[in-house]
Amino acid sequence: MTRPGAGMAADIDEQPAAFARLLTTEHAGAIAQVAAAIAEHGPRHVVFTARGTSDHAALYGAYLTEIRLGLPAGLASPSSVTAYGARPDLSAALVVGVSQSGGSPDLTEVLRAARDSGALTLAVTNAPDSPLADVAELSVDIAAGHERAVAATKTYTAELLALLMLVEGIRAGDGVLPADERAALDLLPELAARTLADETPAQLAPRYRFAAQLVTTGRGYAYPTAREAALKLMETSYLPALAFSGADLLHGPLAMTDPDVPVLAVVGSGPGGRAMGEVLPRLGERRAEVVVVGSADVPATTRIAVPEVDERYAPLLDILPLQRLALALALARGEDPDAPRGLRKVTATM
Amino acid sequence: MTRPGAGMAADIDEQPAAFARLLTTEHAGAIAQVAAAIAEHGPRHVVFTARGTSDHAALYGAYLTEIRLGLPAGLASPSSVTAYGARPDLSAALVVGVSQSGGSPDLTEVLRAARDSGALTLAVTNAPDSPLADVAELSVDIAAGHERAVAATKTYTAELLALLMLVEGIRAGDGVLPADERAALDLLPELAARTLADETPAQLAPRYRFAAQLVTTGRGYAYPTAREAALKLMETSYLPALAFSGADLLHGPLAMTDPDVPVLAVVGSGPGGRAMGEVLPRLGERRAEVVVVGSADVPATTRIAVPEVDERYAPLLDILPLQRLALALALARGEDPDAPRGLRKVTATM
Repeated sequence: MTRPGAGMAADIDEQPAAFARLLTTEHAGAIAQVAAAIAEHGPRHVVFTARGTSDHAALYGAYLTEIRLGLPAGLASPSSVTAYGARPDLSAALVVGVSQSGGSPDLTEVLRAARDSGALTLAVTNAPDSPLADVAELSVDIAAGHERAVAATKTYTAELLALLMLVEGIRAGDGVLPADERAALDLLPELAARTLADETPAQLAPRYRFAAQLVTTGRGYAYPTAREAALKLMETSYLPALAFSGADLLHGPLAMTDPDVPVLAVVGSGPGGRAMGEVLPRLGERRAEVVVVGSADVPATTRIAVPEVDERYAPLLDILPLQRLALALALARGEDPDAPRGLRKVTATM
Repeated sequence: MTRPGAGMAADIDEQPAAFARLLTTEHAGAIAQVAAAIAEHGPRHVVFTARGTSDHAALYGAYLTEIRLGLPAGLASPSSVTAYGARPDLSAALVVGVSQSGGSPDLTEVLRAARDSGALTLAVTNAPDSPLADVAELSVDIAAGHERAVAATKTYTAELLALLMLVEGIRAGDGVLPADERAALDLLPELAARTLADETPAQLAPRYRFAAQLVTTGRGYAYPTAREAALKLMETSYLPALAFSGADLLHGPLAMTDPDVPVLAVVGSGPGGRAMGEVLPRLGERRAEVVVVGSADVPATTRIAVPEVDERYAPLLDILPLQRLALALALARGEDPDAPRGLRKVTATM
């Protein structure tokens, strides 16, 4: 009998090591080869397909693709292929399936249909022998090692880093990261360890033990972080956690916020964080309790400071205290996040 | 001093008339011309951009585009353009901005950038003289008339119908709907009136007066309906309402459901509804209280039956009882959905 949450805690703590592993010559070289093959092929647009936590990594990949590669990017709904038999012409596309298990039949079906229509296909998984990796022409192994908990943590951030290395490799053309990019990435394991050492998330958990709901928000690169934080809270604490882009929050759901609804706002120092500048005062008008996570030094009820990095890298760090908060909140509520009710690790939706 | 919710009730009741208006020769003819121009131009893929309620209409448009036109479709994140200055190459794309007000500066900026990169641009709005319609080459007027309430209802379904007529017109090539399609559409005003006459939503409201949260779910064409129902509940009742595709629900958030969390499941008789076949039993295992909305005759705690139509048309009907439920629930909770706290009709996010 292990301590409740011991598995999830161990997964979370392994993230600096998982970053370092992905940055070794072996794994970085493999990603560079895939990136070079994609650059050589020259797709006109990129379509991501994923479920759950990996969908948030895919969303990050879509932002990177548009901003760093200047290619249109979107997330595909698997059901248009699997339920309705749609066969969109993807001959000019790179289609990327992101899945820690690589075992979801619907994603495999989407990649198979895409490959049949002439797309270049890529699987990003933690299981290089999985059906998803088998069906794709190209495959990236995120090499995160066995994940103990059902709630994905280290596979999420390893997916983010793999997608970042991949996109920057495609941007470089030959797959090889420019020296300054590589140097910045090499700092990430240490920055992640430092971020994880901050005890603020564990200290916050008792305060939100009896919260009935939470809202998470962010813009740009921080929006996937807000989405993933909400999912983690729901999976482990069964708390309704609603994620909104800062802009969408102002379009309606702002009315839900009041002093009883804690808001976790992911706010960095770059353009996405600055775009939150209009959101935070509106939350203030509603007297919301706001926890700001990220590098921006803005007024908040509580700040969880994260080391300042280029906003592109921030999603790899900002999620860490939020994973810890989800774990601590689950434990405070008497739940065991390693054995969530009603969940399975591989979800075989079609 | 008018009765609370009188504006929203009137907007909801006008939907059959709004459908009929959009189907008149004047408006159908204008949409057919736009459709013919798009077919002639021959885009290789379609990118939608929208916020809030209109984002759910855009999601419906993306399903239609993939399934009916065989073109890849995706939803763009405005912030990659507005915050990060991304200028993806959209020269082979049709870029569609959907907005009832046409007044959101971020969407206008996305369309302007898309047009500069060579995209064909289209605005779908309830305001043909708006900045969004001005910046786009093509414009569709959804002709829903003045909307009284802040929470969008009739502009949502008019956006759905306009997008449906547009996509089927593009599919036809010359913009003119095939006779059987046109005949099916001509039934919608009467079917909408019949759907609105069902008093089940109003009768359900007292039961959920003290619910602390709700979950909505659907797959395929029904997924936008689940998303929009959740937003309507949040905007008017301030209830946390979490929307999940049926597949994503099984990937984690299922753990949140228990007998205290009512689930509104949108389930039709077509492929999307059948794909929910694996979701409903799992909700049953968790002893969730399930309200099934749609034409599928499946076991449920409560059924809100909606006339059976081709699944493509179902989103125009299935949302109607859910709008009524949101209104009735807001009133039961002592709120005035016509004057929601902290909300503005045109949200000027950048």
